[in-house]
Amino acid sequence: MPPIPSSLHIFHPCLNHYLKPNFFSLSYFSISAPKFPLSSQLIPINPRTLSSVANALSPSENGSGGGGDRSSALAGPPVLENSVQKIDVNPPKGTRDFPPEEMRLRNWLFHNFREVSRLTGFEEVDYPVLESEALFIRKAGEEIRDQLYCFEDRGNRRVALRPELTPSLARLVIQKGKSLSLPLKWFAIGQCWRYERMTRGRRREHYQWNMDIIGVPEVTAEAELISSIVNSRKVLQEILRSYSISENLFAKVCVIIDKIEKIPIDEIKKELKSVGMPQEAVNELLEVLSVKSLSELEEILGGAGEAIAELKQLFSLAEKFGYSEWIQFDASVVRGLAYYTGIVFEGFDRAGKLRAICGGGRYDRLLSTFGGDDLPACGFGFGDAVIIELLKEKGILPELVPQIENIVCALDHDLQGAAATVATMLREKGQSVDLVLESKPLKWVFKRAARINAQRLILVGNTEWKKGMVSVKILSSGEQSEIKLDDAGTDRLQNQMSEQYTQLS
Amino acid sequence: MPPIPSSLHIFHPCLNHYLKPNFFSLSYFSISAPKFPLSSQLIPINPRTLSSVANALSPSENGSGGGGDRSSALAGPPVLENSVQKIDVNPPKGTRDFPPEEMRLRNWLFHNFREVSRLTGFEEVDYPVLESEALFIRKAGEEIRDQLYCFEDRGNRRVALRPELTPSLARLVIQKGKSLSLPLKWFAIGQCWRYERMTRGRRREHYQWNMDIIGVPEVTAEAELISSIVNSRKVLQEILRSYSISENLFAKVCVIIDKIEKIPIDEIKKELKSVGMPQEAVNELLEVLSVKSLSELEEILGGAGEAIAELKQLFSLAEKFGYSEWIQFDASVVRGLAYYTGIVFEGFDRAGKLRAICGGGRYDRLLSTFGGDDLPACGFGFGDAVIIELLKEKGILPELVPQIENIVCALDHDLQGAAATVATMLREKGQSVDLVLESKPLKWVFKRAARINAQRLILVGNTEWKKGMVSVKILSSGEQSEIKLDDAGTDRLQNQMSEQYTQLS
Repeated sequence: MPPIPSSLHIFHPCLNHYLKPNFFSLSYFSISAPKFPLSSQLIPINPRTLSSVANALSPSENGSGGGGDRSSALAGPPVLENSVQKIDVNPPKGTRDFPPEEMRLRNWLFHNFREVSRLTGFEEVDYPVLESEALFIRKAGEEIRDQLYCFEDRGNRRVALRPELTPSLARLVIQKGKSLSLPLKWFAIGQCWRYERMTRGRRREHYQWNMDIIGVPEVTAEAELISSIVNSRKVLQEILRSYSISENLFAKVCVIIDKIEKIPIDEIKKELKSVGMPQEAVNELLEVLSVKSLSELEEILGGAGEAIAELKQLFSLAEKFGYSEWIQFDASVVRGLAYYTGIVFEGFDRAGKLRAICGGGRYDRLLSTFGGDDLPACGFGFGDAVIIELLKEKGILPELVPQIENIVCALDHDLQGAAATVATMLREKGQSVDLVLESKPLKWVFKRAARINAQRLILVGNTEWKKGMVSVKILSSGEQSEIKLDDAGTDRLQNQMSEQYTQLS
Repeated sequence: MPPIPSSLHIFHPCLNHYLKPNFFSLSYFSISAPKFPLSSQLIPINPRTLSSVANALSPSENGSGGGGDRSSALAGPPVLENSVQKIDVNPPKGTRDFPPEEMRLRNWLFHNFREVSRLTGFEEVDYPVLESEALFIRKAGEEIRDQLYCFEDRGNRRVALRPELTPSLARLVIQKGKSLSLPLKWFAIGQCWRYERMTRGRRREHYQWNMDIIGVPEVTAEAELISSIVNSRKVLQEILRSYSISENLFAKVCVIIDKIEKIPIDEIKKELKSVGMPQEAVNELLEVLSVKSLSELEEILGGAGEAIAELKQLFSLAEKFGYSEWIQFDASVVRGLAYYTGIVFEGFDRAGKLRAICGGGRYDRLLSTFGGDDLPACGFGFGDAVIIELLKEKGILPELVPQIENIVCALDHDLQGAAATVATMLREKGQSVDLVLESKPLKWVFKRAARINAQRLILVGNTEWKKGMVSVKILSSGEQSEIKLDDAGTDRLQNQMSEQYTQLS
């Protein structure tokens, strides 16, 4: 069963024009392709050594002394007494480096997460990336449990790299207890870990944006959070109840149903029967799961149930929030986590080609599983991987180039101090400055200026500097001038830059 | 030997007035006091249960079904069939939660780190928090090695939570090889882990800001980076050379000397002799280490050495950069990491009461220890703990309160959809909105508005809404008006807010 064509709304308003429905029907993006080719590619460097890594020595033990060999390091490798084997220069399997170009993308994405959170009045929080293993051990046999990145620390404590953020949220809410004023509206952006088999280009870590509302039992909370496919676990509960099936089965049944796209339907049937569901109930359950409209569901279940009522209210609120065209009912959405108790939802691209972009739901009884007092709660998680894949596929990732206002360069070695003074003056005015730290030919400086996308080149030359002046070149227009570096002069430089910005925008 | 009174310059220009010398001579801050009392305090909640944690069940297995018990959760705990023992609600030993008030502080600090990095033209990068253990194993017997947070993963790989960022930087630079245009100016803000004994309130994780310049052999690179106490390891090398002591000893000697404030001087002497230094050399070394001025050092070592020349150039450049009053020579600074090869530096508060705020130096031969080609390199690390302690002690931590522009509330349950519409309109204009999601008395709404520091209360009432209007109250002045929610009306609301900002600033 492919993901249901739907859409996504949770994003910065400025991005909304990217995310209109018509953008979500283009081509397919192979998820086995490396998502971050730049960070994972291995650039061949001659292995210079043969002996074992155990020989890896501290620099001084290798080095040829404290002499003049430092500047020669640029020209070639220094002579080593003990050669060493090159380490594996890739990050550990399933993890990523973020070189500048990837980091700009990550910062851009997180900025959008934060901006949406700000607009909706959520406060940012975070928890340790390393938590007690007990926090993540649940009985429902979720996939997540088998994928725990867990260890024993030096104090013989069982710890785990967090696979998700919600249990930590629950722990903190219990800890803070009555000192918290409800409702809480909290968001977090944190790295989560799963020890998965490395198939289909999936990684073992990703960043996840979570938004959670604690203390609001009403469906207005879901409406505030939701973007996409909407369903309620209560539908399932009503079916189970109508067959007098124990509520104990509920979480287990959810976990099985969540696998419906991954394993054959006969396997699903077998698993449902093996946890104790009668054949008849399995059949009705699977019939209901294929329902794709609320009215159809109402016909099957009757209009009296709480599930139907809540879903109706949610769709009505979605109208008022202005995102009703972005959501769709799909009874097969149950989510793979055991703790959901009510409405659950997932966000997909309209083409339905990729995995879920985000997902969440109501989890009103998670706190009591940790021994705390329950509070009404709902939230969602939104990973950094699928959304980037999607935007990349659509060709609508922003081009994020380095941004710098000035590159400052001394034309003479003796003027490096003067260039430092110029850099300091500009930085004190809030201007960003790349200071050229070596004596380099002008050609090199222009090349660097282009690479770092500098807007202005400031040259500190002997004749001008004696008059307290510098030579200034706007790199986009080639316009050149000399400016005296008093207060008025630096102000003039600053205004020049603002004008440029105005012209550009 | 107490830390030398010195100072710190690496910060946002806007903060400079906080960091003038006279601010650094106040009282002593006990570092055994919990640094984050809010996050570590345990608020007592009645343990409701007796049975073991193994009974922790998924919500549905505890729950009383899918009925109407959700809203009653606010009134009191639901009836549980199986009670569970409360988990330890504290984060793992040595780690922290970041509830909103701590997260605001962290974001403020990181914003300053990023702002300084932007002004100096550095690009942000990051690496995996989990790295191969081999990356951190060095032979010099540094403290850091014994404190590695290391594990074996499910694939039997030795991995470690990174104790520092520099080895990952070296790994990435080797991996990228010739595709990188030198010099690199990179910064990172990452969480680092050390399995320390939990004495004196030290934690096992902290965030560290690193700035590194790769590819510049000249001392201008250090000058660009440096804030505080300055020294060069080359001084040591020259002493070792004058006694014909093997260069192999260099890193080990540095690690021993770094402990000079922590263990008795006789222990230091003994350790130096035990690695093979003759008594005479030990004596001269200790004499040199007590030197506190460059001219005094020149008298002892003679003016010809490279160390003196570089340090002189550094102090001269510091003059030009405008921070010479912030730095001071101290021959005892060597840093505890084995890979430094030249100038090293540490930053302290002027009163010298706290641990180093930051530290760094030149490490021109780190890459070859990993089998790569060496490149000139220098950088520093700047933790999030000591600086916060210091600012707290000085009483100059900013008061970071929540910031929100609007709180929107329906006066009638039937108008919650209308309130949602109002929230969406304002958010589309870039305004932050806390939407009240439940029907609450006005008194509660005003209390919440005060707590979240909302600037404007927007009430959606029946009479006004029929005319497409809402009631607007500026909370600081009490000024009240009715506004029609067409385009002109929302623009008016937006302008009203900007005017308020102007008045406030």
